Amino acid sequence: MSILLALAAAAQAPAAKPLTPSEIVAQAPAAAWSEVSPDDLLVIDYQGGARTIIELAPAFAPVHVANIRALAAAGYWRGSSIYRVQDNYVTQWGVNEGGPPIPATVVKKPPAEYDRAVRGLTIRPLGYSDAYAPRVGHAQGWPFAWNPATGRGNLTHCYGMVGVGRDMAPDTGMGGELYAVIGHAPRHLDRNIALVGRVVEGMEQMSALPRGTEALGIYKAGTVARLIANIRLASALPAAERPRFQVMKTDSATFSAYVRARANRRDAFFNIPAGGVDLCNAPVPVRRTPAPSSSR
Amino acid sequence: MSILLALAAAAQAPAAKPLTPSEIVAQAPAAAWSEVSPDDLLVIDYQGGARTIIELAPAFAPVHVANIRALAAAGYWRGSSIYRVQDNYVTQWGVNEGGPPIPATVVKKPPAEYDRAVRGLTIRPLGYSDAYAPRVGHAQGWPFAWNPATGRGNLTHCYGMVGVGRDMAPDTGMGGELYAVIGHAPRHLDRNIALVGRVVEGMEQMSALPRGTEALGIYKAGTVARLIANIRLASALPAAERPRFQVMKTDSATFSAYVRARANRRDAFFNIPAGGVDLCNAPVPVRRTPAPSSSR
Repeated sequence: MSILLALAAAAQAPAAKPLTPSEIVAQAPAAAWSEVSPDDLLVIDYQGGARTIIELAPAFAPVHVANIRALAAAGYWRGSSIYRVQDNYVTQWGVNEGGPPIPATVVKKPPAEYDRAVRGLTIRPLGYSDAYAPRVGHAQGWPFAWNPATGRGNLTHCYGMVGVGRDMAPDTGMGGELYAVIGHAPRHLDRNIALVGRVVEGMEQMSALPRGTEALGIYKAGTVARLIANIRLASALPAAERPRFQVMKTDSATFSAYVRARANRRDAFFNIPAGGVDLCNAPVPVRRTPAPSSSR
Repeated sequence: MSILLALAAAAQAPAAKPLTPSEIVAQAPAAAWSEVSPDDLLVIDYQGGARTIIELAPAFAPVHVANIRALAAAGYWRGSSIYRVQDNYVTQWGVNEGGPPIPATVVKKPPAEYDRAVRGLTIRPLGYSDAYAPRVGHAQGWPFAWNPATGRGNLTHCYGMVGVGRDMAPDTGMGGELYAVIGHAPRHLDRNIALVGRVVEGMEQMSALPRGTEALGIYKAGTVARLIANIRLASALPAAERPRFQVMKTDSATFSAYVRARANRRDAFFNIPAGGVDLCNAPVPVRRTPAPSSSR
């Protein structure tokens, strides 16, 4: 009976053309978005005026993120630079050598926040396999891998993710040097380094730089890729000047529809939908917070 | 008995430190390398002197590759440009509109060389799972995905892979417009477009360009990312000026050791080896052909 009814309904309405991923994002209801706290937005102002904005991930690396906030508040990065750009790998910036005094509140040797307990997180499994981890998906807006056997999981090194540069173990880096992924996801770094956020705007200011000519893409001594005027939290800017962002809730029905559409592209260009998508090829949608009149 | 002998041997020699991927490549014997034919090297000379070199893949897209060779021989790309750079996606170049006459030998509507029969290929399974295909690995030097149920497989959209720009189906593109992947592997393009090669040198000439500001990273009308002086096959250059490259044989023991080392990084920096690697994070090693005295 219900089958017949469904068939009758289908006969009346022509089959809806499946939405593309960008159509799903454009039509997402306001309830599918989550506002980013201005304490979680790190604003990099370059000399010359361009800007890169990073969302911090305090739920995954709280000590490192607290360090970064303290460094920003102290103006630690004023006059620092991007000094490393390695093709298909990372762009790295901050205070490489010397630099101003480190604020007293900064934990010089933070714990290895390379993973955390899964407990307490809301996770949406991706539903497709992964070469690196038994399980992958999205945890509270972030790409995440975990192991049910250990109950622990970690943020993953997808394009645009930001981590803390470090020396050899057991040093985890105090947060004064940061990097962003600018190539194919170097997932072998997962669980070996503290990821603290992702670029949400101005990625091209880091990805389109000339590659450094020395080992590991380091710039030749005395040269830099880009001078940094200052790095501040959005909360330190005057209220009217704060950039505002929203991240799609990864436990929303809209996000599930988005992932399914990424895995089964049916835009006119595609002849054969893949039937799957890898974790880093389903980036979590982020947008500038719309003005009240245009939000739904 | 053999166990005791092995233990005795182990007691005499200290346990060898596992080689890193780059050490394995540096120490690879000459027999692990395969010389690329000068007919399979496409040399892009930019105005101003920089160069990008691409290895063609005639075993996977023979008609498209024949077209590209014919276009190069005719000087079709002289004075063309890079006109599209989309962040975390592709850089595209060639003759976008207008341009010189297309040589008569070029097949204007090539067949959809998006996949091919697996039969006849020497394939090394990667050994780790993939979100896009039932099986992945390397076929005669190339990243490859296949389906045992259909007996067909395809090159995969890894970083640096080169494909033929096309319009909507069933047009496959005749080869006059090409693109290279400059971001996280857009594997959803697999089986939807003809891959014809990979960048083997000068990748940064394509990946570090300013991103185009129009839709899809297209450059604003009247502007280009880079002017192309000419594109020729290495075989069309005077013998003494031909660049020579070697690709690691993917059915060699050296390549297997390399993949295992990529999957289990034990360099001093790494605390936790991943235990796996994804297809596009195990790029096939390529090198300039060493001078006879230094080859082993």
